[in-house]
Amino acid sequence: MKHSSLLFKNDILTILDQTLLPQKVKYKKISHLKDVYTAIKNLQVRGAPLIGVFAAYGLYVSLNTKTRIKKTEFIRKALHNIDYLKTARPTAVNLSWALTKIQEVILNNKESTVPEIKRLIKKTAERIHRDDVKLCRMIGITGCKLISKNDSILTHCNTGFLATSGNGTALSVIYEAYKKYPKIKVYVDETRPLLQGARLTSWELLSKNIDLRLITDNSAAFLMQKKKITKVIVGADRITSLGFTANKVGTYNLAVLCKHHKIPFYVAAPSSTFDLSISKSKDIPIEERPAKEIKTLANRLIAPKDVKACNPAFDITPPGLITGIITEKGIIYQPSKKNILKILNRI
Amino acid sequence: MKHSSLLFKNDILTILDQTLLPQKVKYKKISHLKDVYTAIKNLQVRGAPLIGVFAAYGLYVSLNTKTRIKKTEFIRKALHNIDYLKTARPTAVNLSWALTKIQEVILNNKESTVPEIKRLIKKTAERIHRDDVKLCRMIGITGCKLISKNDSILTHCNTGFLATSGNGTALSVIYEAYKKYPKIKVYVDETRPLLQGARLTSWELLSKNIDLRLITDNSAAFLMQKKKITKVIVGADRITSLGFTANKVGTYNLAVLCKHHKIPFYVAAPSSTFDLSISKSKDIPIEERPAKEIKTLANRLIAPKDVKACNPAFDITPPGLITGIITEKGIIYQPSKKNILKILNRI
Repeated sequence: MKHSSLLFKNDILTILDQTLLPQKVKYKKISHLKDVYTAIKNLQVRGAPLIGVFAAYGLYVSLNTKTRIKKTEFIRKALHNIDYLKTARPTAVNLSWALTKIQEVILNNKESTVPEIKRLIKKTAERIHRDDVKLCRMIGITGCKLISKNDSILTHCNTGFLATSGNGTALSVIYEAYKKYPKIKVYVDETRPLLQGARLTSWELLSKNIDLRLITDNSAAFLMQKKKITKVIVGADRITSLGFTANKVGTYNLAVLCKHHKIPFYVAAPSSTFDLSISKSKDIPIEERPAKEIKTLANRLIAPKDVKACNPAFDITPPGLITGIITEKGIIYQPSKKNILKILNRI
Repeated sequence: MKHSSLLFKNDILTILDQTLLPQKVKYKKISHLKDVYTAIKNLQVRGAPLIGVFAAYGLYVSLNTKTRIKKTEFIRKALHNIDYLKTARPTAVNLSWALTKIQEVILNNKESTVPEIKRLIKKTAERIHRDDVKLCRMIGITGCKLISKNDSILTHCNTGFLATSGNGTALSVIYEAYKKYPKIKVYVDETRPLLQGARLTSWELLSKNIDLRLITDNSAAFLMQKKKITKVIVGADRITSLGFTANKVGTYNLAVLCKHHKIPFYVAAPSSTFDLSISKSKDIPIEERPAKEIKTLANRLIAPKDVKACNPAFDITPPGLITGIITEKGIIYQPSKKNILKILNRI
């Protein structure tokens, strides 16, 4: 069976609950605003591009009620829902990017009827979805050129069909490369604390029969020292105009290791991941998640209950450690304001 | 209550089963050879120095049976037990170091009676134990000189009273420093896959009221970038004559990060951790442990059941990344054959 992270059909929005993977494959219908928010906040839906697509559809279903409503009331509710959903998670830019796109549509069509505005919101969400699928494919095709037939690629967190509504970003590159070079090998780090590597990426790669080894995050340096890893490819949650890249915590660690071992370090992300309104590392808000995520596993305590923990969900990799950023428009080598704009301004 | 990793009294050997911590504090009597082997193999007893002390006592209790036995048979059995126990774990040198010491005692006293040889084995085990306690204290005192009052120290795995029969190695430095500077802060990385940091080091530090933060192994680089970590101190399982240092996997990762962030990286270990019979990195056997340790937690599967994993238990840090090795005899700066011998040859 081919799985999807998200389905939207006949105005019904369904997600694959990623917190239950790989033990349970359970789809869940989402129709209320609160459930959209919770699904994002609790990582039932995760991965920067997927969050964007899901939030757009989620907003639509939250507004698509049978109750008759006045237009001013509808617009007020829509803008409120948008503001509320934007606060579900702070780091990935895609969430606010997608919701802002819909906000613009609403504000530009204030003169239309409620059913017409609803139709436009739905259309916008569907376009964001379609674009994401297309961008994923383009990223795969672009990044594939970097891969050689005997590569052993390390990837972090999950950036595949569970993190997007298409084939993924970093994993899309691997999927595309696998078609050409079926002997490539993939190392998947488990990605503590929430084990997106162990639970999600392993599951994805197994479903595609790709040769993989699961490792602890602790082992990457050792494997690099032993020359077992030839490339690292990761995703991104937000990239500034200077190339500072926020991604799942542990990414910066890998970038430093790559520099030390002279291994190419690539980031794969659609152009919508760039937030050109900010430039510096400190401009990116870093989500601090609950200590519980480190201290418990499947509700079982794995540390003393009174211990304090520090749980940043993301880190920031400076552009100097990035060999290239793979986008749907091309590869940005030596990321800098100039080099970023050169690629992003391509049509 | 003051806890001990190991107790030996009236010929009875008791251990604190570390696999059950921090949820359960359970002591367990050990009297059979197979149980000694299993306790080491399954990490009920762990930490290079503790393994040495425990193996010495364990050998003694395995031989201290009531059954009358001929001397040749006793010696044959003793040497067999030594050989068998040496295979329980390959990387830490302390296991074979302690057992070889006892082997020498046996071979040098072949002319003595069985009770007399038993007495000598016991005496040797007790001396190894006493020495370990003393060495731990000396390491603490020596290393404490490196610590400043506002330090934020990151430590890896567990190197305290649970890893030794004394106060620890790297943690002994922290305990000693804490007496002098009660405001020092400690970051404890969880140390996947077996969570010795989360389960054991957190528990130890909490019991001593030291200010600590538990972090995932993935977060160290991020915290270093934010200048939250001023020093890293770790233990060691084996150090070659050139200073190549085997320790819990993830150690080498931290050493690379320290170099990148210009943070001092210290190793704390007694002189018995040096294996001067070998020099190069490749001479150290690296234990590959079962995939199950990564794929399950408390017998619950946290990855797809069919996924292959790669689980090296140790890694090797080259001397060039080590600021200093803290031993009971002094600190070896810029570890090299010459600098190592200069300190180790001190009486």
